[in-house]
Amino acid sequence: MNSIKVPDIIVSRLPVYLRALQYMISNGATTTSSQELGSKVGISAAQIRKDLSQFGEFGKQGTGYHIPFLIERLQQILKVELVWDVVLVGMGELGHAILRYQGFLNRGFKIVACYDSDPAKIGTKVDVYTVEDVNDLVKKIGPTGIKMAMLCVPASAAQAVTEKLLEAGIKGILNYAPVSLTVPDDVRVQYIDPVIGLQRMAYYLNDK
Amino acid sequence: MNSIKVPDIIVSRLPVYLRALQYMISNGATTTSSQELGSKVGISAAQIRKDLSQFGEFGKQGTGYHIPFLIERLQQILKVELVWDVVLVGMGELGHAILRYQGFLNRGFKIVACYDSDPAKIGTKVDVYTVEDVNDLVKKIGPTGIKMAMLCVPASAAQAVTEKLLEAGIKGILNYAPVSLTVPDDVRVQYIDPVIGLQRMAYYLNDK
Repeated sequence: MNSIKVPDIIVSRLPVYLRALQYMISNGATTTSSQELGSKVGISAAQIRKDLSQFGEFGKQGTGYHIPFLIERLQQILKVELVWDVVLVGMGELGHAILRYQGFLNRGFKIVACYDSDPAKIGTKVDVYTVEDVNDLVKKIGPTGIKMAMLCVPASAAQAVTEKLLEAGIKGILNYAPVSLTVPDDVRVQYIDPVIGLQRMAYYLNDK
Repeated sequence: MNSIKVPDIIVSRLPVYLRALQYMISNGATTTSSQELGSKVGISAAQIRKDLSQFGEFGKQGTGYHIPFLIERLQQILKVELVWDVVLVGMGELGHAILRYQGFLNRGFKIVACYDSDPAKIGTKVDVYTVEDVNDLVKKIGPTGIKMAMLCVPASAAQAVTEKLLEAGIKGILNYAPVSLTVPDDVRVQYIDPVIGLQRMAYYLNDK
């Protein structure tokens, strides 16, 4: 289905639609319209119809979208109808919070291992996980075929750990370290930096 | 400086440039070029020059950018040369991790109060903070003129708490709850949802 290249900006909106639809269905809804979905996610109905039309026909004129069907199709398009294994590197406070977050599995992701470089942490148990040595990362992850990682190490260590992740065959990095990563073209990075979000809003605020 | 409207997409990149420049200076650099900065952040040199040109002249042909000057100007443009007070709502595990994160203050933000709805949490101390009652949010925040909030409550509570934040005069919300918020046009929301980031990458991965 990816034979025609869909613009990244459209792909980036699909998870937002999926999240809204899953929220609607958890509240008992079974059908929706591009207008209603648009009002939930702050995107125009026309844009939603145009985005979805890249992937086929999803709704009927007049009756709108059948939510379970649209969810199933979006999950297939995003390849999250099954669950991806993910490794987590960096077991500081944030790493612990992420490890305990319950919202991954029902949206397509499962943390299967966690790593740190601190000898005091390696070998300790955190919930069902045993913290592993980041120096074993390449030999441990390589053979598994795991493709995704979450990076929660300090900025100063982020690029060096990234090199290990790349060597281990990781192709997608969710980066919580407040620094840009350098990766090859076939590797994706998504950034999570709360300060970037705050600064993007500060620009628009008029006074303190 | 905002008299000519700068496209949102350009504004959204400025914090990324600022972060990279601050990282460079912390490593001892004092000058850089659009090429070097571009290689750090994964954006072309031409795009960086074009983005910065929206706000004036920053570099000299041949000598590049003086990093301290460019940092100062970007901080002014983003209005983070001083520190913004921010309130945090939702004192679960994530709220605790955010409260203890040391990376806000040196980048323009300070958490000054935290709120929760759980009677077992209200009144307890977390570091230097005392958890306050979310029902007091409007009367407490309103008079302070605080404009920014971080929202770390469950998805099911997010819109209701948002209504309170709006009533209290909040104009920028960093939303960690995995749900889209409905806000008036003069209010900005930035979303932090790790699963959205993971799903955006899964689309591009070829196999599990």
